[in-house]
Amino acid sequence: MPYELYYWDGIQGRGEFVRLALEEAGAKYIDKCRSSTGTQSMMEFLKGSHGHDQMPFAPPFLKDGELVISHVANILLYLAPKLGLVPDDEKSRLIANGLQLTITDFVAEVHDTHHPISTGDYYEDQKNEAKARSAAFIKDRLPKFLGYFERMLAGDPAPNGFIVGNGLTYVDLSLFQVIEGLHYAFPNAMKALEKDYPRLSSLRDSVAKRTSIAAYLNSERRLPFSESGIFRHYPELDCGD
Amino acid sequence: MPYELYYWDGIQGRGEFVRLALEEAGAKYIDKCRSSTGTQSMMEFLKGSHGHDQMPFAPPFLKDGELVISHVANILLYLAPKLGLVPDDEKSRLIANGLQLTITDFVAEVHDTHHPISTGDYYEDQKNEAKARSAAFIKDRLPKFLGYFERMLAGDPAPNGFIVGNGLTYVDLSLFQVIEGLHYAFPNAMKALEKDYPRLSSLRDSVAKRTSIAAYLNSERRLPFSESGIFRHYPELDCGD
Repeated sequence: MPYELYYWDGIQGRGEFVRLALEEAGAKYIDKCRSSTGTQSMMEFLKGSHGHDQMPFAPPFLKDGELVISHVANILLYLAPKLGLVPDDEKSRLIANGLQLTITDFVAEVHDTHHPISTGDYYEDQKNEAKARSAAFIKDRLPKFLGYFERMLAGDPAPNGFIVGNGLTYVDLSLFQVIEGLHYAFPNAMKALEKDYPRLSSLRDSVAKRTSIAAYLNSERRLPFSESGIFRHYPELDCGD
Repeated sequence: MPYELYYWDGIQGRGEFVRLALEEAGAKYIDKCRSSTGTQSMMEFLKGSHGHDQMPFAPPFLKDGELVISHVANILLYLAPKLGLVPDDEKSRLIANGLQLTITDFVAEVHDTHHPISTGDYYEDQKNEAKARSAAFIKDRLPKFLGYFERMLAGDPAPNGFIVGNGLTYVDLSLFQVIEGLHYAFPNAMKALEKDYPRLSSLRDSVAKRTSIAAYLNSERRLPFSESGIFRHYPELDCGD
C-alpha cells in the first residue's frame, strides 16, 4: 500500500521535506491533496473524524495503514529506516533527529521573517515588522544556522560530503531544500554569504544531481517556490545586491 | 552513571521539560550548569571541543555516557522508554512524539510574544511589536493550541486524564509545564480562557499533586519562572483583567 502524504495543496511548504525523502528512495506514495477530494479528506483528519489517534494538529502528516504520523521530523524519523536514509545505529539516529529538529527551528524562523506578528494576517499588514525581523535574521540567525551546519559538514575526522555517517541521510535532503529555499527567498544575502559555506553549497549541488532527485526536480511533482510557501521572495526583505 | 543535563544556568526554560521527566521518574541526574564549572563545560560542547558527534546547536542537551542528545523532543524520545514515561507500542510513541513537537512549536510561539523581531535584542527594544504579537497570540494561537490539546484529552472513546494511552507520559508533564507557564505569563488571558479547557486544568492539577512532582516543585531544584525564561510576565502583553 502506498504511503499517503497530506499537505496543503499547491505549495512545497513543510511537505517538501517528506517528498524529497520519498522521491530519493523511489517509494510509492500518493500526494493526497493534489487530487480533487484530497483536501476535504485532510480536513476530516484535522477535525477528528477518524478519532483522536488520527488527529494531527496540522499538516503535513503521513498515513501508513493505521498509523497517522504528524510533524516533519517525526515522519522522517519513522520513514528513514524503511527508506534506507539513516544509519542503523542509535547514536546516528539521535544525531540525525537532533539535526532535523534544528532544521525545523530554522524553517520556523524563515517563516517568521514574512510573518513576524501574526500568521493569520497578510504579509502586507506586517511589512515593516517583517523588514526589521528579516534584517535581524540575515545579520544574526542566517550565519548562525549556516555556520553550524557547515561545521557539522566539516566532519570528524574528515569531511565526506554527508552530515551524518558515511552516506546520504534524510538530513542531507532537508539541508538541500533549505539552501534552495534560502537562495529563492534571499538571493542577495545568500550570494554574499555563499563563499563562507562551501560545504553546504557542495551538498546542495550533489543532492540536486542525484538520479532520483534530478528526475523529481524536473517533474511536475516538484511544485515551484512561491509567495504562498515558507520561503518567499519579497525583494524588500532581502539585503541590497 | 547519572544523566547529565546541560542547560543555561538560572532559568527553567526548555530544560524544564527534561527536568520534569527525570524528576517524575526519580532518575539520577546532574543539572550541570548549577555547578561552578558547568557552564564552561557546556560551552565546550557547543564549540565542538568534543567532536562533531557531541556538538549540539543549542542547549538543552543530555549526556548519557557517549551519547549527547539535543532538542527537548529528541531527549524525551530517548529517555521516556527508559523512565517508563511512554507506552511500549510504536503507534503510541509516534503520537507522543507528534504531540511533543506540537508543544515545541507552541513554546516557540510563546517565546516570540516577547521577542517578535530579534532574539538578539532586548525586549524593551521591540515592545510595541511584542504587544501586537501577543494580542494575536492571545486571540488566535492560544485558543487554537489549547483547544487541540483539550480535544486530545477528551479521549477516544472516553477521557482518562492522560493524553496518550492509559497512563502518565512525558507529554502530560510537558503540558503541565506549558499551562503553568501560560498562567504565569498571561494570568488575565488564562483566567478568561480557563473554563473552556477543563481537562487541561485538571491535568495540570493532577500532575502537580503527584508525589515526585510535588516534592520537586517544593525543592530548590525547581527554579522560579522569571523574565529571563520563555514564559515571561510583562503585564502590558497580557489582556485586561
